[in-house]
Amino acid sequence: MGAISKDGLNIANKSREIVRNKIKEVLGDRINEFNEKEMGIIERVVHATADPEYAKLLVFKNNPIEEGIKAIKEEKPIIVDVNMIKAGIRYNKVHCFINHPDVYEVAKKEGITRAVASMRLAKDLIDDGIVVIGNSPTALFEVIRLVKEENIKPKLIVGVPVGFVQASESKEALREVNVPSISTIGPKGGTPVAVAIINGIIAYAKNEKA
Amino acid sequence: MGAISKDGLNIANKSREIVRNKIKEVLGDRINEFNEKEMGIIERVVHATADPEYAKLLVFKNNPIEEGIKAIKEEKPIIVDVNMIKAGIRYNKVHCFINHPDVYEVAKKEGITRAVASMRLAKDLIDDGIVVIGNSPTALFEVIRLVKEENIKPKLIVGVPVGFVQASESKEALREVNVPSISTIGPKGGTPVAVAIINGIIAYAKNEKA
Repeated sequence: MGAISKDGLNIANKSREIVRNKIKEVLGDRINEFNEKEMGIIERVVHATADPEYAKLLVFKNNPIEEGIKAIKEEKPIIVDVNMIKAGIRYNKVHCFINHPDVYEVAKKEGITRAVASMRLAKDLIDDGIVVIGNSPTALFEVIRLVKEENIKPKLIVGVPVGFVQASESKEALREVNVPSISTIGPKGGTPVAVAIINGIIAYAKNEKA
Repeated sequence: MGAISKDGLNIANKSREIVRNKIKEVLGDRINEFNEKEMGIIERVVHATADPEYAKLLVFKNNPIEEGIKAIKEEKPIIVDVNMIKAGIRYNKVHCFINHPDVYEVAKKEGITRAVASMRLAKDLIDDGIVVIGNSPTALFEVIRLVKEENIKPKLIVGVPVGFVQASESKEALREVNVPSISTIGPKGGTPVAVAIINGIIAYAKNEKA
């Protein structure tokens, strides 16, 4: 995971072993439900959060990892809701419009969240692109609306907004649309979860181990 | 928390109420151990992670919030371990050297992690500045070494590296040095925890509600 020193590699290896054992404890027999690539993503998320509960919370729908790998190989853009995610992704074509002047203006004028306005502004990039949402439920609801009402077709949606209001509901709604998606059950999620998932897929696309 | 629309504000208010109740459940009578400003920081962390367990994990040592507020008012620099944290902090003087060319070189030559090399490079800024570490235990150990061996005196260390290897130990070591600090007990932590804490302190310094 970017470690170049012996210390860095030792920590990564030890951590991987502990993470695998914690996941086994949490999943029990359910561990067989996941393929090797899915397990790699689950490991990354548990590694990034030190929270093994994520092994039970992650949901893979409509072949999302393979679709994501294909999209990355085709150099499709990634659209994210917050700059913290942009800072964490190891990929050149990442777009975040949350601080775009048009977004402030539209949000104020239309009485919508900046997160919603930022997804609306990114509509053309989202069509055929990858969406990664780690913070805002309203952004995820807007992307789902674009899919349902405006026939926008993202290659993959990583939808892991965090929080006790609307986050769970937005992720449930995501799992009901016919789009490749990776999401979490319940309020948990967040930027490190989002970054761990998409960096895992990017690593697969580069034929690296996740 | 940056919300400008009615929807955004409604979500923030509802969320705050739920977060407060969850914290009460987790802390029980221990809730009286924390003052108002500390509670504000705890609320921000639980809000950012949707994980009420953090109410039990956060440790405030040597008056860290007041020292942090003072340092922010004096416009002291903030030094962070990863760019995701830099992207999340609402403050102008934030430095991250993890991708600095010198850091790559020093890490390779001396067989240390890039995180360690980045803290060593930031030594003069760390003296009298604020350190925020949300990812790397080795970076935190290096800052502790600078304090102990090189008489470097940070105004505040927010030390919440995440992971199953060395993270707990690095935070225990932090709590043993005589520096204002905010940390977590155990493996949990991470960039959103770090950002929630320091943005809370910045908000206090600006006389905003946390």
